[in-house]
Amino acid sequence: MQTRLTGLDRPFDIAVLTTGDELLNGELADTNTGTIAAILSQYGYRLRCSLSVPDQEKEIEAALRYLSGHAQAVIVTGGLGSTGDDLTARAAARATGQQLAINEEALEMVRAWFKKRNRQMEPSNERQALLPLEAEPLQNPLGTAPGFRLRHKNCQLFFLPGVPSEMKAMFNQAVLPALQELHPPEAARQQRLFKLFGLPEPKVDALIPYSQLPQGVDVAFALDYPLVLVKLRADGDDATQRLDQAETILLEVLGEHIMARDEQTPEEVVGKLLIEAGLSLSLAESCTGGLVASMLTSQPGASAFLERGAVTYADSAKQDWLQVPLPILQQHGAVSEQCARAMAIGLRRATGTDLALSITGIAGPDGGTEEKPVGTVFMALANPEGVHVKGYRFNGDRHKVQRMSAVMALEWLRRFALRYAKD
Amino acid sequence: MQTRLTGLDRPFDIAVLTTGDELLNGELADTNTGTIAAILSQYGYRLRCSLSVPDQEKEIEAALRYLSGHAQAVIVTGGLGSTGDDLTARAAARATGQQLAINEEALEMVRAWFKKRNRQMEPSNERQALLPLEAEPLQNPLGTAPGFRLRHKNCQLFFLPGVPSEMKAMFNQAVLPALQELHPPEAARQQRLFKLFGLPEPKVDALIPYSQLPQGVDVAFALDYPLVLVKLRADGDDATQRLDQAETILLEVLGEHIMARDEQTPEEVVGKLLIEAGLSLSLAESCTGGLVASMLTSQPGASAFLERGAVTYADSAKQDWLQVPLPILQQHGAVSEQCARAMAIGLRRATGTDLALSITGIAGPDGGTEEKPVGTVFMALANPEGVHVKGYRFNGDRHKVQRMSAVMALEWLRRFALRYAKD
Repeated sequence: MQTRLTGLDRPFDIAVLTTGDELLNGELADTNTGTIAAILSQYGYRLRCSLSVPDQEKEIEAALRYLSGHAQAVIVTGGLGSTGDDLTARAAARATGQQLAINEEALEMVRAWFKKRNRQMEPSNERQALLPLEAEPLQNPLGTAPGFRLRHKNCQLFFLPGVPSEMKAMFNQAVLPALQELHPPEAARQQRLFKLFGLPEPKVDALIPYSQLPQGVDVAFALDYPLVLVKLRADGDDATQRLDQAETILLEVLGEHIMARDEQTPEEVVGKLLIEAGLSLSLAESCTGGLVASMLTSQPGASAFLERGAVTYADSAKQDWLQVPLPILQQHGAVSEQCARAMAIGLRRATGTDLALSITGIAGPDGGTEEKPVGTVFMALANPEGVHVKGYRFNGDRHKVQRMSAVMALEWLRRFALRYAKD
Repeated sequence: MQTRLTGLDRPFDIAVLTTGDELLNGELADTNTGTIAAILSQYGYRLRCSLSVPDQEKEIEAALRYLSGHAQAVIVTGGLGSTGDDLTARAAARATGQQLAINEEALEMVRAWFKKRNRQMEPSNERQALLPLEAEPLQNPLGTAPGFRLRHKNCQLFFLPGVPSEMKAMFNQAVLPALQELHPPEAARQQRLFKLFGLPEPKVDALIPYSQLPQGVDVAFALDYPLVLVKLRADGDDATQRLDQAETILLEVLGEHIMARDEQTPEEVVGKLLIEAGLSLSLAESCTGGLVASMLTSQPGASAFLERGAVTYADSAKQDWLQVPLPILQQHGAVSEQCARAMAIGLRRATGTDLALSITGIAGPDGGTEEKPVGTVFMALANPEGVHVKGYRFNGDRHKVQRMSAVMALEWLRRFALRYAKD
C-alpha cells in the first residue's frame, strides 16, 4: 500500500468503462473512449485503460470492482436508459454494496425533462431515477437519463449515458470540473497539427531535422489520404515556447507543403485565400464529378468566389458549355492535355471569372488503356496570365483517384492565390 | 472451477486487448475491436469484453494475465512494430513466464517481406522476430510484423499488428480458422440491413408489427443522417427462413421507404435504376454545390446516365446556362419555386436529357430571412411528363441541409425511375 503522498505526487489514474452489447457485436464502434481521452489529454490528465463490457449485470459489476481497485477515477458510459437492458445502476449498487432507491433529485430531473417538452413521462422512465443509495445525480442537458456520481473506497465513479452527445455534454459539465477539484491537473499537453500535401510520409519524415527540435517535442504522423498529417506535441509550462520553436523549424523545411493546420480543411483555406486575393473561380470537372465544387461549397461564404461549376461528364457537355472544339475530342480524346486546356479556356470565356479550372481523367475501374491507364488525369488552370496545364498518373482505386485529383486541384488554387496575392 | 463439459457446452469466451498510447490520448479511436466483433458475430462467436491499454510493458502484462484468466481466447492488437514503443512480445513473454528468443520462422518472414519489395531491412526490423520461446509465428500479408500465437494455461492468445488492414487480414487468415478448430461456432448470426428515408426513427419503429415477426428475430436501429437504418438479425439453423419472413413483413409496411439495403448506397441504387429504365439525367445544383453529382459519380458507370451537371452558384450562371429569365430572379429570387422550375426546364432544353433536376436553397448559416429561413430548399424535376416542383423546410446546420437535400434529390430520382419502369 502506498504512503499518502502530497499534491501532484499522488497517483491519479483514470479508467473508462463503456457498456453495451452493440460495442461487442460489431454493430457500433466505441467513440466515447476517444472523446473522453481527447478532453483528458487536453487538460493534462492521462487515461490508464478503457474496458468495454456487454449489457450484463454481472459483467458490469465485475468490471466496476476491477477498475475501482486500479484507478482513482472511473468514468462509466451506457446502461442508464429506461429499458430492461439498462443495468448499470443495479450493477453499481451491487459493486459498492448499496441498496437501490428512488433518488428524489434524479426523479425531479426526469420529470422536468418531460414537462419542458410538453411530453408524457412513461412509467419506465421512473426507473431512470432508481440509483444506488449514496449516489449524487448529475444533470443531463440533452436527454432523459440523469447521470450519477458515487464514491467507493479510494475511487470516484462517474456514470454517464452512452449516447455520445449526452455523454460529452455531461462529461464537460460535471465530470471534468470534479476531476479538476479532486486532482489539479499536470500542465496540459499542447499540440499543433499540420496537413501536408505533395510529399509521401517517409519523405516528410526524412525532411524533419529531429536533432534540431527542442527537447520534449513529440512528432507523430497520421494519414488522411492524400494528406500527410504531422502532429507536434509538448507538455509542461513552457510547452508553448517549445512548440513555437518547433513550428518555426517545421515551416522552414516543409512550409510550402502545408495546406491547412489544426481544425482547418484545405478547402476552407483555399476559399479564404481566393477571397483575400479577390479572385473569382469557375470549375469544369469531368472525372471528379463535382467533388471539388462540393468541397468548396461545403464551407459557408463560397458565393464570394465561386461563380459556377460544371460537371461536363459527356463530350456533348464539353462542347456545348465549354466550346471544346470537336476536332480536339476526335484527335486527342476527352482525356488529354489539349482537351483540358480547351475546357479551361472555354470555361473562362463563358464565365468571365479570373480563374477557370478544368479536370479530365480516368477514375476507373473501367476506361483505362495501355496508353492512358486508370489514374491518368489532366488539369488546366486558365488565369489572368495564361493557361497552366499538367498531366498526372495517379495510383489507387476510383475513390482515391477522385480524391487525389480534387486535392491536387485545391493545391493548384492555393498556390496560385498565394503567388497572386504577393504580386 | 468448472467441470469439463463436452462440445458446445464448454464456455468459450473471447476477449480483445488493444494496445497503444494513441488509443488512450484521444488521437485515434479504436476500430479494431469493432472489426473483430463484427467478424466474430458473423460466425456465431461472442466477444466477452475489450480492453485498451497504453504502450507500457507492465500494463500490457497485467492485462494479459487478467484476460487470460477470464477468457479462452484473447486477441491482442498493436505493439509489434520495430520501434522502442513496441513492447507486446516482451509483455507476452513475461506474462507467460517465457524467455524471448529470435524465432527463425518469424525472421524468415521479415526477411522475405523486404526481399520481395527490393528494400533494405533495417536492424530494428530484426526485433520483430524476437518472440516468446513457444510462440508460433503468423504470416502478415500486408506488413513487416509477423503476428504470433501462444498458449497459456487454458487460453489461446493471438498477437496481431495494430494497423487495421494488417490486423483484419491476419484475423481472417489465421485467427478465425484457429477459433473454428478450437471451438466449432454456434450457428452463425445472420443479418439484413435496410436503409430508409422519409420517416423519422420513432415512426419507423411504430410501423413495425413486432408481434407479427417470427420468434428470435432481433430488430436494431441506427442513424446515418438522413437515413434510418433498420437491422434484422437472427441466430440458428433456420435463421434464413425466419429472416425471409421478417423481411417480407418489413417490405409490406415500409418497402416504399427503402432506398438501399446491406452494402448498397442510395446513389448506387439510383444509378442502377436510371440505367435500367434507360433514363438520361442532367443536374443543376445551387445550394448543394455539386454534392448530388459527386455522389452519383462516385460510382463507376455513371457515364451511362449522367450527361452533365451544373453548379449554378451565382445568378449569372443560372441565366447563362439555364436560361432562367431575369424577371424571375428579380421578382421571386433564386430560392423560389419559380426559379427551381425555370432551372429544370432550361436545363432540360439545353441538354436534351430525359430528366433534369434542379436544387436551389439556403444551406446556411447565413442567407436566411424570416420568410425564407435557413433550410428553405426548392427542387424541380423536368421529365417527359412535365415538371414536378416542391419546396421544403429542412432542419440542421449547413452540412445537414446539404446532405438532406442531396438525399431527397436521390429519392426523387429513385421514385421516378421506379414508376417509369413500371409503365
